[in-house]
Amino acid sequence: MQKKPIFVQNANQIITLKGSSEKPLTKEQMNELHIIENSSLWLEDGKIQMVGPHDKLVEQYKDRLHEAEIIDSYGKIILPGLVDPHTHLVYAGSREGEFNMRLNGATYMEIMNNGGGIHATTSKTREACEDELFAQSFRRLNAFLLHGVTTVEAKSGYGLNWETEYKQLKVAKRLNEAHVIDIVSTFMGAHAVPADFKHLEDKFVDFVIEEMLPKVAEENLAEFNDVFCERGVFTPEQSRRILLAGKKYGLIPKLHADEIEPYEGAELAAEVGAISADHLLKASEKGMKAMADKGVIGVLLPGTAFFLMAESANGRKMIDLGVPVALSTDCNPGSSPTCSLPFIMNLACLKMGLTPAEAIVAATINAAHAINRGQEIGSIEIGKKADIVIMDVPNYMQLAYHYGMNHTDTVIKNGKVVVLGGQIQ
Amino acid sequence: MQKKPIFVQNANQIITLKGSSEKPLTKEQMNELHIIENSSLWLEDGKIQMVGPHDKLVEQYKDRLHEAEIIDSYGKIILPGLVDPHTHLVYAGSREGEFNMRLNGATYMEIMNNGGGIHATTSKTREACEDELFAQSFRRLNAFLLHGVTTVEAKSGYGLNWETEYKQLKVAKRLNEAHVIDIVSTFMGAHAVPADFKHLEDKFVDFVIEEMLPKVAEENLAEFNDVFCERGVFTPEQSRRILLAGKKYGLIPKLHADEIEPYEGAELAAEVGAISADHLLKASEKGMKAMADKGVIGVLLPGTAFFLMAESANGRKMIDLGVPVALSTDCNPGSSPTCSLPFIMNLACLKMGLTPAEAIVAATINAAHAINRGQEIGSIEIGKKADIVIMDVPNYMQLAYHYGMNHTDTVIKNGKVVVLGGQIQ
Ligand SMILES: [Zn+2]
Ligand SMILES: [Zn+2]
Repeated sequence: MQKKPIFVQNANQIITLKGSSEKPLTKEQMNELHIIENSSLWLEDGKIQMVGPHDKLVEQYKDRLHEAEIIDSYGKIILPGLVDPHTHLVYAGSREGEFNMRLNGATYMEIMNNGGGIHATTSKTREACEDELFAQSFRRLNAFLLHGVTTVEAKSGYGLNWETEYKQLKVAKRLNEAHVIDIVSTFMGAHAVPADFKHLEDKFVDFVIEEMLPKVAEENLAEFNDVFCERGVFTPEQSRRILLAGKKYGLIPKLHADEIEPYEGAELAAEVGAISADHLLKASEKGMKAMADKGVIGVLLPGTAFFLMAESANGRKMIDLGVPVALSTDCNPGSSPTCSLPFIMNLACLKMGLTPAEAIVAATINAAHAINRGQEIGSIEIGKKADIVIMDVPNYMQLAYHYGMNHTDTVIKNGKVVVLGGQIQ
Repeated sequence: MQKKPIFVQNANQIITLKGSSEKPLTKEQMNELHIIENSSLWLEDGKIQMVGPHDKLVEQYKDRLHEAEIIDSYGKIILPGLVDPHTHLVYAGSREGEFNMRLNGATYMEIMNNGGGIHATTSKTREACEDELFAQSFRRLNAFLLHGVTTVEAKSGYGLNWETEYKQLKVAKRLNEAHVIDIVSTFMGAHAVPADFKHLEDKFVDFVIEEMLPKVAEENLAEFNDVFCERGVFTPEQSRRILLAGKKYGLIPKLHADEIEPYEGAELAAEVGAISADHLLKASEKGMKAMADKGVIGVLLPGTAFFLMAESANGRKMIDLGVPVALSTDCNPGSSPTCSLPFIMNLACLKMGLTPAEAIVAATINAAHAINRGQEIGSIEIGKKADIVIMDVPNYMQLAYHYGMNHTDTVIKNGKVVVLGGQIQ
């Protein structure tokens, strides 16, 4: 850990999100950013030691300023490091050929018959050695970092056999150690039905529950357990079985819910006490209300809808109904090949009707809560991890206003400057 | 001009767009990128001296390699420098407050009554001194450059009085001299009806024709003449008068056409021999066919539709009907505050159904033709200007596939390296 303190001085605005560590923000709270103008930060021992008006900090630290590394942020704003709570980070290969076919008018079946779809990535990920997977994923983490992201959730699920699921989870663990970004792992053995279990979905569910989950738990490879609950993939009943079995091992449920059609995924998430339900493009109002009731976070992925040319989830309505909403890239090679969480924040405003303030809350503190890290990250408060991003815009509204551009200027992770002037240090 | 030659070596792909200098590309031609794999470029005296397979260039220049600056582009692709053929680059102020109000549910009238809209920018631009306007616009040009753009069209039109229109055009001229990006100027005195001419639109049209156009021509301040032809702004008749009057002074017509409702703007552009008609969200099929017939370029601005939450123009249909299509940011503070032409290319694929190849043609050679520069820029051919961008993706399809991210790695302008590793040099 860096010994030298960092004095980040003179920001136009620090978006503190004060008081949000206990519970995700909902409704009107999502517009209360708790901004301090003309403000500074003292970071030391990897933690936020003080945040407040510049003059006050200068007074407080006047005897120690000479020791500190000074980062000037005049004309800029400071946010908590962005948190991405839903990615399929660890995979091999890329599928731009499929994308190109689609834009050239190929049908879904033509693409499948040409070897496209999730099974293309499963094959590549099975074939790739651990070091290859590590190298490809490490590069993606650099891209995340350059977009201001300091914590990333990563799911397995491109193995669909134990060997490869295990490989993905081990790579995620290695990445967490090797890369400055913190990785939070989710086991998602039930991401799709593998070819050798076709028409034997219940057998595959047994396999996940009896063979995979115990090993994940034994080696402590994940904190969360996720299932792709969708017609033609896993039913709500199958999903429930997997999530409840995971709970016995201490794995917190998450759910890919109601993406393609209404399937009572949101309701199931509320029923099993999931920490989040994700996608939710077709979630029912009843499901949304159940989520609001139980405090299940809605992790919305408007980039996926954008890339698949679909209608986004109704984020506006969810917030109005009291669902705590978070945002994520859904980074994956088939339906969302991006690492730009700032762009996802743009989409949240322009495609789901979130306000610029709500988009910030959704990509910081609510995202942190969606991976059970609300106490450590996601807001700028004394004692929290010194994960900070400086954006080169004069006020928070311009983050969404100057759309399609990456404004990340400086990233501080664990109290260490890791991106400066848009370059990894 | 840099004396030292540059050897750009070992690209995965060079997208040459060979043979496109005479006329913009249409229909199937827009999918023919003329790619050379494992290829290199020799740049000297500000021009492209040779392009071809790496081995061939090494052989040809073996006695001179030691003189050259070497830029390695292994694993990357090379495109002609991007061309933005429609911007309102020179303006003062920004309007994120208005944007924030809109996302918080304010109506159009509430925003107007709060001092929003184009007249907010007109006021600020009138008030700003020349140096202030220059400084703000220069900063935007840096953002363009970092997104791979090497030529930018810039319109006046935030003055609506001679003094300010003149100031904008002078600033554009100064920017062209001071910044590495080439600026091409368009006079757009008829961008809106100023408050003092309310209900006296014809008088304002007289003023534009009799007072402004002659001065623009006399001082050689612009090459193009543009009008905002839309119900409630300028009628097709008024627009025709202005464009024909400009032609007498040698100013080439352009037109803001059919953005809000069908208004026969596309038809008018074809009738007066405009080089381009821009926006075209509501253009009629008859208008599109007339444009195709006359070779009028359709400059499409999907970012504006995105930012205003509107349906994009039907780019797919226009290409299929034979309209030569180009793309632009429409950079302006009200309806498109972005400098990312690569993101506009993403939108063209995902919101207008262009293929990744068509999006590249539309942002390079067809954009160059839309500002009458097809002979000098927009493709990578011997004798053309050495305006080159290296994108950090292994093939051209990934440019659109890895959406929402800026892949610009290196920019060479007039044979000089101006961006390296994503940083302005
Ligand atoms: Zn997912
Ligand atoms: Zn315009």
